[in-house]
Amino acid sequence: MVSPLVNYLQSFNVLPAGMVATVCEGFDEVRLKRNQFFLKEGQVCKTLGFVESGLLVYYRLAENGQEIVADFAQENEWVCQYQSFINSVPSALFIKAVEPCVIHTITLDNLNRLYSAIPGFEKLAKQLIEAAFMQMVNRQLEFQHLRAEERYERMLLVYPSVAQRVPQYYIASFLGIAPPSLSRIRKNRAG
Amino acid sequence: MVSPLVNYLQSFNVLPAGMVATVCEGFDEVRLKRNQFFLKEGQVCKTLGFVESGLLVYYRLAENGQEIVADFAQENEWVCQYQSFINSVPSALFIKAVEPCVIHTITLDNLNRLYSAIPGFEKLAKQLIEAAFMQMVNRQLEFQHLRAEERYERMLLVYPSVAQRVPQYYIASFLGIAPPSLSRIRKNRAG
Repeated sequence: MVSPLVNYLQSFNVLPAGMVATVCEGFDEVRLKRNQFFLKEGQVCKTLGFVESGLLVYYRLAENGQEIVADFAQENEWVCQYQSFINSVPSALFIKAVEPCVIHTITLDNLNRLYSAIPGFEKLAKQLIEAAFMQMVNRQLEFQHLRAEERYERMLLVYPSVAQRVPQYYIASFLGIAPPSLSRIRKNRAG
Repeated sequence: MVSPLVNYLQSFNVLPAGMVATVCEGFDEVRLKRNQFFLKEGQVCKTLGFVESGLLVYYRLAENGQEIVADFAQENEWVCQYQSFINSVPSALFIKAVEPCVIHTITLDNLNRLYSAIPGFEKLAKQLIEAAFMQMVNRQLEFQHLRAEERYERMLLVYPSVAQRVPQYYIASFLGIAPPSLSRIRKNRAG
């Protein structure tokens, strides 16, 4: 079976076929159990990960100890606190496995080595970061000024799988909705 | 006088000195008067712009005709509806000059020609997009779950120049605060 990372990298049609395998050799496999951390607040994010299976949540702790959810990562997505990774600065966020995860990770050194060695790999990386950037821009546009119900509807549409797989209080936090309000919204939809 | 675009491109130390001039030759100068549009909703964004001077606002129109501000661009920043530019799809946003602007613009064709011709230019572009991506991530983290007063304080800190140069109702819209509430916050700060 061809690995999901190989399939993913080939799908962009940027790297020559033989080079995809060489890129994949720069990655290590990491397995996380449920509730294990990919990254903790204050740590430097040492690797960029490609999620083969499982689901992770990005969050920070408010002063009152509340988890404030910033993002999720699931299969065929990248997981990384990018600023911490690129600039070797401590992360303000935790990244935790919500489900058991298989993740392919690469260090910044190995990544830079591949950029130099593999023609087209930096172009591919640029495309991936462009896509991540446009996703963030769209999310801001979609969520800005929507009412709570509309934000929830939007999440069901854009991230249907995440909405089914994470605890409700993570969804409420991600959407900036109080958990009782989210329960009410869900009841109204169901009824 | 060396142009701001040359200074900007040199500051990254990625392009060989002679190549910076070649990159700049791919750009055209555009001047916008106050209230002129860089881009209108429904148009395809044909160029990526580097703002030499002036200030622009990104906004979309709500159904009730209200302007919902998504972003600003000022001197030494890029201006573009990136998804529209890259994918040649109609823009959901307007981009309008709030002040008279001098902008250096480049088409996607010229940009792609430079990526192929200039060693290191794709690497530089990747770095610029990484920076834009990280700025969006940070903005989400900073603004998520902050109270209106805190969002305003944060904006004064992160975008001090913008906060002084645009009409108050643009700031209120960008921060998702009702204009009367923003007036109250500003009065409380001043008092």
